[in-house]
Amino acid sequence: MKFTVTAARDLAERVLAALGHDATDAVLIADHLIDCELRGLAYGGLARAISIAERIARTGDRRRAIRVLHETPVSARLDGGDQLGYLVAHRATQIATGKAEATGIAVVGASDTWYTGMLSYYAEIAAARGLVSVIASNASPWVAPHGATEGRFGTNPICFGFPSADEPVIWDVGTSAIIHAEVTLARRLGQLLPADVAFDAEGQPTRDPGAALAGAFAAWGGHKGSGLGIVVQLLGIMAGSPPIPPELAGFGFVIITMRPDLMGSADDFRANVSAYAKGVRTARPVDGGAPVRMPFDRSRAERQRRRAADAIEIPDEICRQLNDIVARQPAGVNS
Amino acid sequence: MKFTVTAARDLAERVLAALGHDATDAVLIADHLIDCELRGLAYGGLARAISIAERIARTGDRRRAIRVLHETPVSARLDGGDQLGYLVAHRATQIATGKAEATGIAVVGASDTWYTGMLSYYAEIAAARGLVSVIASNASPWVAPHGATEGRFGTNPICFGFPSADEPVIWDVGTSAIIHAEVTLARRLGQLLPADVAFDAEGQPTRDPGAALAGAFAAWGGHKGSGLGIVVQLLGIMAGSPPIPPELAGFGFVIITMRPDLMGSADDFRANVSAYAKGVRTARPVDGGAPVRMPFDRSRAERQRRRAADAIEIPDEICRQLNDIVARQPAGVNS
Repeated sequence: MKFTVTAARDLAERVLAALGHDATDAVLIADHLIDCELRGLAYGGLARAISIAERIARTGDRRRAIRVLHETPVSARLDGGDQLGYLVAHRATQIATGKAEATGIAVVGASDTWYTGMLSYYAEIAAARGLVSVIASNASPWVAPHGATEGRFGTNPICFGFPSADEPVIWDVGTSAIIHAEVTLARRLGQLLPADVAFDAEGQPTRDPGAALAGAFAAWGGHKGSGLGIVVQLLGIMAGSPPIPPELAGFGFVIITMRPDLMGSADDFRANVSAYAKGVRTARPVDGGAPVRMPFDRSRAERQRRRAADAIEIPDEICRQLNDIVARQPAGVNS
Repeated sequence: MKFTVTAARDLAERVLAALGHDATDAVLIADHLIDCELRGLAYGGLARAISIAERIARTGDRRRAIRVLHETPVSARLDGGDQLGYLVAHRATQIATGKAEATGIAVVGASDTWYTGMLSYYAEIAAARGLVSVIASNASPWVAPHGATEGRFGTNPICFGFPSADEPVIWDVGTSAIIHAEVTLARRLGQLLPADVAFDAEGQPTRDPGAALAGAFAAWGGHKGSGLGIVVQLLGIMAGSPPIPPELAGFGFVIITMRPDLMGSADDFRANVSAYAKGVRTARPVDGGAPVRMPFDRSRAERQRRRAADAIEIPDEICRQLNDIVARQPAGVNS
C-alpha cells in the first residue's frame, strides 16, 4: 500500500501511541522508523513497530524513566530503563554532543535498552553539529562468532560519522551476515533466508527464518568481521550490558563524539573530507562497473528519491497488523 | 637463519643505529619489530628495517623533532616530524594514556609520520594501564575502494583494545585484502601474490607484487570493509594527514583512549570481559572445526611459543641485507 510520507508518519505515531508512548516519544520513534523507510530499509521501518508490540506483549510494559547514573564533564552513563533504544540512544547522543561541544570529546554509555535502530541516525545528529562520532550498540546473542554455530553477540552495528563541507560521511554496518530485522521480516512474510547466513539450534546451516531465530546467524566478514562483532559486544558491556543479554532486553549503547578542531582547523577538516569523498567517487571503476560510491551515498539518494516522490510503500500485511495494534489498544491506554 | 630473541633484538638495534637512530629510539623501534617476529608477522619484523633503509635512501633523512602543536586537557595534536610511526605513535600513546588517566577520555592525533606498525602494540600499552582504546592509522593510497581499481586509501589498520581480569582483548585488522609489507616481502623474495588481491597500474588483476605496488591492492570485506578503510583515512585526515598522502610519508595516527570506570566499576568490567572471552572460546565449533578463538589469541600463543623456544627464524636473504646496512653505514653516521 502506498503512503505519503506524512500519512506513513501519522500511522507510525498512532501505533506508538497505542503502545503507550507519549506524543513527544512517539514523534521521535516514528521519525526514526520513517527515516528507515525513506532510506529503503523497510525491515527497520514501520514493520519494526509490530516487533515492538510483540516484545511488549511478551514481557509486559516494564518501562522506567531514563536516568543518568554517573556523570563527569566528559562522560555520562545512563540507565535506559527498558525504554526503546530509539529514545535512549537519542538521549545519549544529545548528552554526548553537548559535552563534546563544551570539553572537546565525550563518551556516553547506556544500558538496559533494546532496538537502537540505525546508528547513522545518531551520527547524522552529531555531524550536523560539526562533530566526529564513533557509535556502537550490542544486542542479544543472535550471532555466532567465526568458527562457531552458537550465538555469542548481537547483530551489533558500529558506525563512524564525519562532518564535511557538504554531506557528512557516515559508515554504519552490522557485523552479522544478515540483520535481525531482515530475518524477522522474512518470517513475517513467509520467505526463505539466503544460503550460508544462519544455523539452526543444532548448529546445522538453515534457510528457515524461524529456525535461524532459534539458532544463530553467521558473523559477517570471517574472523576479521567476527572480531568487530566482539568489539561491539565489549563496548556494550562497558556501557553496562550483561555479557550475554537476554532476548530483546539489556542492550548497551555507546557514543564517543569529538570536535575536529581539537586537531586543527575545523573548516580545513570539513573541506578535506569533502575533497576526499569526491576523490573516492571519481576513482576509476572496475571494468564495466558503476561509479564508485562513498558510504551512505545509497541511503542519501534513496531518501531524496522517496522524499521527492512523497511515497512510501508498505506491504499490505504489515499495514493490516499495524492497524490491528491501533484498533486493539487505543492511544493513551498505557501512557 | 635462527636467532635467539636477544640476538635478533641486537641485530635490529644495530641496523636502526646505522640508520641514524639514537639508542633510546633504536631500542623502542627494535622492540616493535621483534614483537612482530615473535607474533609470527615476519613481514613487519626485521625485514621492515630494510624498507626503512630504502625509504631513507630515496628521500634522505628529513627527520625533525616530534612536536606538540596543540593541546587541551583531553587532547593533543602532534607533528610527527617525518619520524617513524613506531616512535610517533608511541609518543601519542603515552600522551593519550596519561590524559585519559587524568580526565577519563582523551584523543591524540599525529601527522607527518610513516610505518606505524601493529596498532595492537599501542593497544597493549593502553590495556596494561586499564584503558579501553580505539586506534587508527592511515597511509599512502595503495588500496582501491570497493568497485574501483585505483588507490584511494592505505592498508589502514584499525584497532580496539580492552583490559580484562587476565589477558586483554585486542582486535587489530588491516582494511586491505593484503598488507603492504606482505607485498614488499613477496617482491623481495621473488614470490607471487595470491589471486584477487591486487590490480596493476592499468586496473587489471595482477599477482605480480611489483605491478601491485605500481597499481593498487583490493580492499578487504566488500563495500563494508572498504568503508572501514575510508573511515580510517578520514580519521588520519582529522589528525593532519593530507587526504592522499605521498608515498611512505605524511601518514596520520589517531588514538582515543578512556577509563572504563567512567561507565561503572572497572573491576566488574574487567571481570566481565574475561568471562565474555571465555564464553566465546567455549562456543560450539562448526562441525569438525577447531575451538573458537578470540581476537589476539593466535598472536599471544605464537609469542609465547617463540619466547619459550627463544628462537626467531629470519630468512638468509633478509639477514644478508640487514648486515649490508650495518656494514654500509656504521652506527652514529646520521645521528
